[in-house]
Amino acid sequence: MLYAPHSEADVPAITHDLLDDVREFIAAGEWFKLVAVVSALHPSDICELAMFLDPGERREMLQRLPADAQGEVLEFAETEQLRALIEAIGPLDLPAALDEVDDRTAAEIIEILEPDEREQTLEALDRGAEVGELLDYPEESVGRLMSQSYVALEQDMTTQQAIEYLRTWKPPSDHAYYLYVTDPDHVLIGVISIRDLLVAPSGTPVHEITIRDVHAVPAEMDREEAARVLQRYNLLALPVTDTNGALVGVAEADELIDVLRDEATEDMYRMVGLDEDESPHNSILDTIRLRLPWLIVNLFTAFIGGFVVLAFGSTLKQAVVLAAFLPIVANQSGVTGTQTATVTVRTLALSGSLGTLRGTLYRELVVGFVNGVAVGLVLAVVALVIAQNFVLAGVLFVSMSLASSLATLSGELTPLALQKFGADPALASSIFVTMITDAVSFLLLLGLGAMVVNRL
Amino acid sequence: MLYAPHSEADVPAITHDLLDDVREFIAAGEWFKLVAVVSALHPSDICELAMFLDPGERREMLQRLPADAQGEVLEFAETEQLRALIEAIGPLDLPAALDEVDDRTAAEIIEILEPDEREQTLEALDRGAEVGELLDYPEESVGRLMSQSYVALEQDMTTQQAIEYLRTWKPPSDHAYYLYVTDPDHVLIGVISIRDLLVAPSGTPVHEITIRDVHAVPAEMDREEAARVLQRYNLLALPVTDTNGALVGVAEADELIDVLRDEATEDMYRMVGLDEDESPHNSILDTIRLRLPWLIVNLFTAFIGGFVVLAFGSTLKQAVVLAAFLPIVANQSGVTGTQTATVTVRTLALSGSLGTLRGTLYRELVVGFVNGVAVGLVLAVVALVIAQNFVLAGVLFVSMSLASSLATLSGELTPLALQKFGADPALASSIFVTMITDAVSFLLLLGLGAMVVNRL
Repeated sequence: MLYAPHSEADVPAITHDLLDDVREFIAAGEWFKLVAVVSALHPSDICELAMFLDPGERREMLQRLPADAQGEVLEFAETEQLRALIEAIGPLDLPAALDEVDDRTAAEIIEILEPDEREQTLEALDRGAEVGELLDYPEESVGRLMSQSYVALEQDMTTQQAIEYLRTWKPPSDHAYYLYVTDPDHVLIGVISIRDLLVAPSGTPVHEITIRDVHAVPAEMDREEAARVLQRYNLLALPVTDTNGALVGVAEADELIDVLRDEATEDMYRMVGLDEDESPHNSILDTIRLRLPWLIVNLFTAFIGGFVVLAFGSTLKQAVVLAAFLPIVANQSGVTGTQTATVTVRTLALSGSLGTLRGTLYRELVVGFVNGVAVGLVLAVVALVIAQNFVLAGVLFVSMSLASSLATLSGELTPLALQKFGADPALASSIFVTMITDAVSFLLLLGLGAMVVNRL
Repeated sequence: MLYAPHSEADVPAITHDLLDDVREFIAAGEWFKLVAVVSALHPSDICELAMFLDPGERREMLQRLPADAQGEVLEFAETEQLRALIEAIGPLDLPAALDEVDDRTAAEIIEILEPDEREQTLEALDRGAEVGELLDYPEESVGRLMSQSYVALEQDMTTQQAIEYLRTWKPPSDHAYYLYVTDPDHVLIGVISIRDLLVAPSGTPVHEITIRDVHAVPAEMDREEAARVLQRYNLLALPVTDTNGALVGVAEADELIDVLRDEATEDMYRMVGLDEDESPHNSILDTIRLRLPWLIVNLFTAFIGGFVVLAFGSTLKQAVVLAAFLPIVANQSGVTGTQTATVTVRTLALSGSLGTLRGTLYRELVVGFVNGVAVGLVLAVVALVIAQNFVLAGVLFVSMSLASSLATLSGELTPLALQKFGADPALASSIFVTMITDAVSFLLLLGLGAMVVNRL
């Protein structure tokens, strides 16, 4: 399949015509035609197609596919599509489909099921024991997503023997590019690429072409951290080891790419108080249920700003012009703080390290102050033009500059504080930052305003 | 290198001790020791280490490294580190370092240089012509980042001949897992994996094990779109073709992972009005220069809300309690709108398609209204408790519910409108959304308030 340089408005593989055909076949009950058209698609495209359908159509389509096709669809599905696909396949067909997928996909799906369905689905699987083993690794660990179909060679083999071994065993993985070398206790010694194996003169001992400086990760490692290791060192797979250093699996680039993708989505979502399960495919009810809790939290954080304003009621009554500038100073500080919080959250996510932020607190303070002064000046000039009042202009200038500095400070400290308390640094950080910047802005503007209220 | 399951606070490879040693060696001018310690590190770790140093120290360290080590550092650097590293290596050493890197890294670096330095650096390179060719592809295209060291086999070779060819030619790429099959005009016919080549009985014609349904991308395709193709179909590399279908290069997973990573960062940054060049390694001056323009834009968008408030000055004077609820309704609608905008921007980025948003506008409207009603009820109850005023509670309830529905609407329509006008849907979207939600909230609350002001 060759893609057009600029595909417009629609996913390359799913055209409107195709979608219309599929809908028609479903409506008319033409199952032969439906299966013929759908089976010709790549499993990833079937996932996308399924998402365009209504839940009822999706069920009709997926339930007509044979178990192995259902399995392929589940293997290629993105995290946010998985729930809808499982529902469409339905509890009756699911075990047969799961028997067709690799262990890590089965483990991922079982984790999504309701607790009471998990046990019985696991028992119904042919490879239930193997899948259960993966589920013993911590949630979000790299152990849960590793593949167990890797190639391990012994170090005293020759390259010719290794090639014979590969020919006999025919490793099933699409991605068997790295071959791992282990000792008799299965402890990881190093790695060779299949290219090096092929290119080496036959008769070369495997240990001579083994790269020993290998980036292995423990099975308990958080998968985001593992994905960062892969990304950082430009690798295509990471060997996964147990506490004794024995090789237990391989985490492949295509799985870890999905982790990086989901992680970035999570960070964006969490910052604004969205749940990681948020998806455009969720039902209205699910969306309400996922969003409402943080909105209520936000309401109570917003009350803090409201109380500050209420406390200055008499000042506002005397100088109602201040009310017009309240949202301006608050909005401006909010954006300033959110910008810093975004940089901080993203830097922590990309490096996983506080070290990268060395010295940035000072930088943010200076940047916040200088930008605050600049914005404050513009604001003061506008106030002068509108109200011809130098005192008001002064109040605005001073409160804007200070609020801006405090905003960058809170933008950096809020994610750091969340991390310090063991929470995700992204968690609702823009909600907390705005709470602080609102309160600070109101306090500064109304506090300064109150001092000179007779001259406003 | 085996990683600890939970590395705390610091990047695994760069310990405080190492950093202290390096600093000491630089301060004392002990260049032998410095080079010995630094050369033992992985190039990615040298990049990270360089970022922990002050600009002066960074220069001392990098300029002591031989050109091939400098080149490796540049090849493994992340986009946001590249500028600082180029500055540290300096214009004198840069051409020698660039002669050591692959063409696509050289092209990437030359693009970063100031326009007047580009031409002369390109001329100084041994492979200037090849690098210049890559630079002929559009900016941000996949052509610019493809590797040209791929393996192309002819379809009438046998597997044995293909293996001999590989042994003679010894492809230099670390990632030569896929082998491409082309016709005499170099037109791409299909792909085989090196594993299939190895496992096939010798004497098998290459065309028998060729997979013809290959995901090729044109060199002009936007690199983000190419990265989505790779991610979607779980591939490790994409063949890149010219307009005639001839193979011109290969875009590898490690490069495209970086594209996905940078794209997610860009989206997060752009949404809050940050420039994509924003980095914790930027100087104070650069940071101010990058952030100030959007802050000034934000100031003017914030004025709109301010003018609405100003227009209702007399209402506020009569019922100053409304001023306390202004920031609450506005903040709440702002968060509601930003949440929807975030989901919309991320969905567009992940699927590159409007289709995935089918039906979500209606969903967002309903969700916004229902959540608005829920939050409005809480707000009304609080107002009743504080002010014992049923009219005020009613005004708050109605304005909150309506503002919330309009907020989700603007949260979805703003990114879509930006895309419609050819801009990035993320571009300052949260700034524009907040402008709308502020104005709408103030208008609703103060408008309704004005109608019943005598009873507040």
